[in-house]
Amino acid sequence: MAVRRELMTEALLERAAELFAERGFDQTSLQDIASAMGLSRPALYHYIDSKDDLLKRLVADLTAAAVADDEQLRARTDLPPVEKLREFVRVMALRVAQRPHRFRLLVIAEATLSPEVMQAHARLKRMKLSLAIELVRDVAATGVMRALDPRIAALAILGMTNWLAWWYSPDGELSSETIADQFATMLIEGLVANDGSENGAGVAGALQRLRRDVERLEHLIGS
Amino acid sequence: MAVRRELMTEALLERAAELFAERGFDQTSLQDIASAMGLSRPALYHYIDSKDDLLKRLVADLTAAAVADDEQLRARTDLPPVEKLREFVRVMALRVAQRPHRFRLLVIAEATLSPEVMQAHARLKRMKLSLAIELVRDVAATGVMRALDPRIAALAILGMTNWLAWWYSPDGELSSETIADQFATMLIEGLVANDGSENGAGVAGALQRLRRDVERLEHLIGS
Repeated sequence: MAVRRELMTEALLERAAELFAERGFDQTSLQDIASAMGLSRPALYHYIDSKDDLLKRLVADLTAAAVADDEQLRARTDLPPVEKLREFVRVMALRVAQRPHRFRLLVIAEATLSPEVMQAHARLKRMKLSLAIELVRDVAATGVMRALDPRIAALAILGMTNWLAWWYSPDGELSSETIADQFATMLIEGLVANDGSENGAGVAGALQRLRRDVERLEHLIGS
Repeated sequence: MAVRRELMTEALLERAAELFAERGFDQTSLQDIASAMGLSRPALYHYIDSKDDLLKRLVADLTAAAVADDEQLRARTDLPPVEKLREFVRVMALRVAQRPHRFRLLVIAEATLSPEVMQAHARLKRMKLSLAIELVRDVAATGVMRALDPRIAALAILGMTNWLAWWYSPDGELSSETIADQFATMLIEGLVANDGSENGAGVAGALQRLRRDVERLEHLIGS
């Protein structure tokens, strides 16, 4: 019975988030949610206490998932800074794509959150932003980054990935994996100056690029 | 009197958008807006008919501004595709930064828009997305783009720039011009393979890169 209850609660949360995101939090009643789940309103109270309780749980869920993901990423010592940032963009994109309704709801319902829920939400937002800035700074510290502000770059990542909640559909042509990979590529290539032009490693770097370009020309002429 | 009325209406729209975005559309009454403007509620009706009228005008304003910007950009024949896309990213970012409250409101209140306003809003969204895809495709057609999906790239642009409505502050350290420029740089560099490794432009391109390498080396040695 405990498993069934858990499954039902999860399905209920997902459906409620969808309805809230579609119709607005205030425009959706517990009766609407019960009907959508094929439950009576009294039966609904078996799983949740109130609409506010529902919202609180939805936010708590997202926060818990985010904390777990972020701690896991921070703990990875096997990745160089650029790859760690790439992984962050991928994880962020996949996390939103997995629960687009809940992310949209969080943004839409921000003004209606109770102080307690609002606090948890604000903490989550700060946490994501500071981890993003930290990871971009780590990339900058390796000397390969263009002259870009880490905060602007971090907010660009959050924007790209949060916005997924408004357009991603699991039934769409683009898989969440493809989107996550392409977002990561765009972002990393956007930040990192591969030819070292803006973060020249001096004469040695310039000579290295010359040699590489001569080799490419030889290859082109030869073929 | 006509000018005063226009100024008052503009100030009223801006303040209303701010209150709606902060507190939610349903949680904000016309009385709240009147109080925030230092007006009586009857005096408010001199400028607007109802809350729905207010929302309709806010959406109409954004739509009109977007249509004007987009037509201007489409009409420009002086820019190569990459620069046209760069300009699009800049214009989008600046447009959101100029009226963050209204953009946020549009997203937050989406579920509460009347069918008429909703239609205008949906049209605006489709328009922005198709122009973005068109501009990315134009860049791809020049052969300099990485292997990325134009739709994903377009939605990344819209995400980055729309999200500005949630974090940009005119009193912040970062100017909207700086943010717009850096967004554009990140995005263009993210899409375009500058070293031609993925989309070589043949011998001519290789020679051009060689010439650039030599110039940089001269510059380095000279300084």
